[in-house]
Amino acid sequence: MSDPATTTPPLEAVIETAIYANDLNAAEQFYTTVLGLPKIGSEAGRHVFFRVGPASVFLVFNADSTLKGGHLPPHGARGSGHFAIGIPTASFDAWRDHLTACSVVIEKEMTWPLGGKSLYFRDPAGNSVELVTQGVWGLAAGW
Amino acid sequence: MSDPATTTPPLEAVIETAIYANDLNAAEQFYTTVLGLPKIGSEAGRHVFFRVGPASVFLVFNADSTLKGGHLPPHGARGSGHFAIGIPTASFDAWRDHLTACSVVIEKEMTWPLGGKSLYFRDPAGNSVELVTQGVWGLAAGW
Repeated sequence: MSDPATTTPPLEAVIETAIYANDLNAAEQFYTTVLGLPKIGSEAGRHVFFRVGPASVFLVFNADSTLKGGHLPPHGARGSGHFAIGIPTASFDAWRDHLTACSVVIEKEMTWPLGGKSLYFRDPAGNSVELVTQGVWGLAAGW
Repeated sequence: MSDPATTTPPLEAVIETAIYANDLNAAEQFYTTVLGLPKIGSEAGRHVFFRVGPASVFLVFNADSTLKGGHLPPHGARGSGHFAIGIPTASFDAWRDHLTACSVVIEKEMTWPLGGKSLYFRDPAGNSVELVTQGVWGLAAGW
């Protein structure tokens, strides 16, 4: 293998993030009404897909279906996945209020060493959802 | 619950994407040398974290550890997760060549209806990794 430092082509961002849920209808209801994500596609029993902002896609799959493969490589996991969506810092309190109004329990609230803040809660399948403001990671884009 | 269409606060992007691997050393070796991701943190036996471009964080966790929880909410999944990283369209052939030079088997290559292209392969834990060019989803940012 040649030296990866000099030969690795460029990467730009994570574009697709996937989690798994057995009840795709419950996932769709949650992610469209509680998080307000626009749905961009679905296949009954296999998946429901959402857009997050202008550059991210969020994929919810039924592992029983995707583990069978088909024309695409099989994948599928069981248990509680985790991901984080970025929110404007000024909307942090509004998000806490909105989740509470939607009867979503805030499992944890964190303030990080760089000043960013997180809200943790669960989707209907038990996945750990996190909303993060800027200032959590110290990335060049502010996150 | 009030009308989500009028009350849902804004979301900007998926910032953190997580997968699981029992062998974190193998994951670190793969993601740093094959994909060239800068490592931004680790805790032996629990996780190794990477940056992808200026605005994405990619998290590899050992589910045995994160399912125990601690000061953060527990999570952890078993099986083969899936995610996709965006690459410049002009680097598609270079990525195929690079992966092959790294002895990574290309499991599937796709051309999508909108013109975008994907390469699918596996990480050492069996997670389904996809590299995507612009023109797969029709997002405002081009992806």
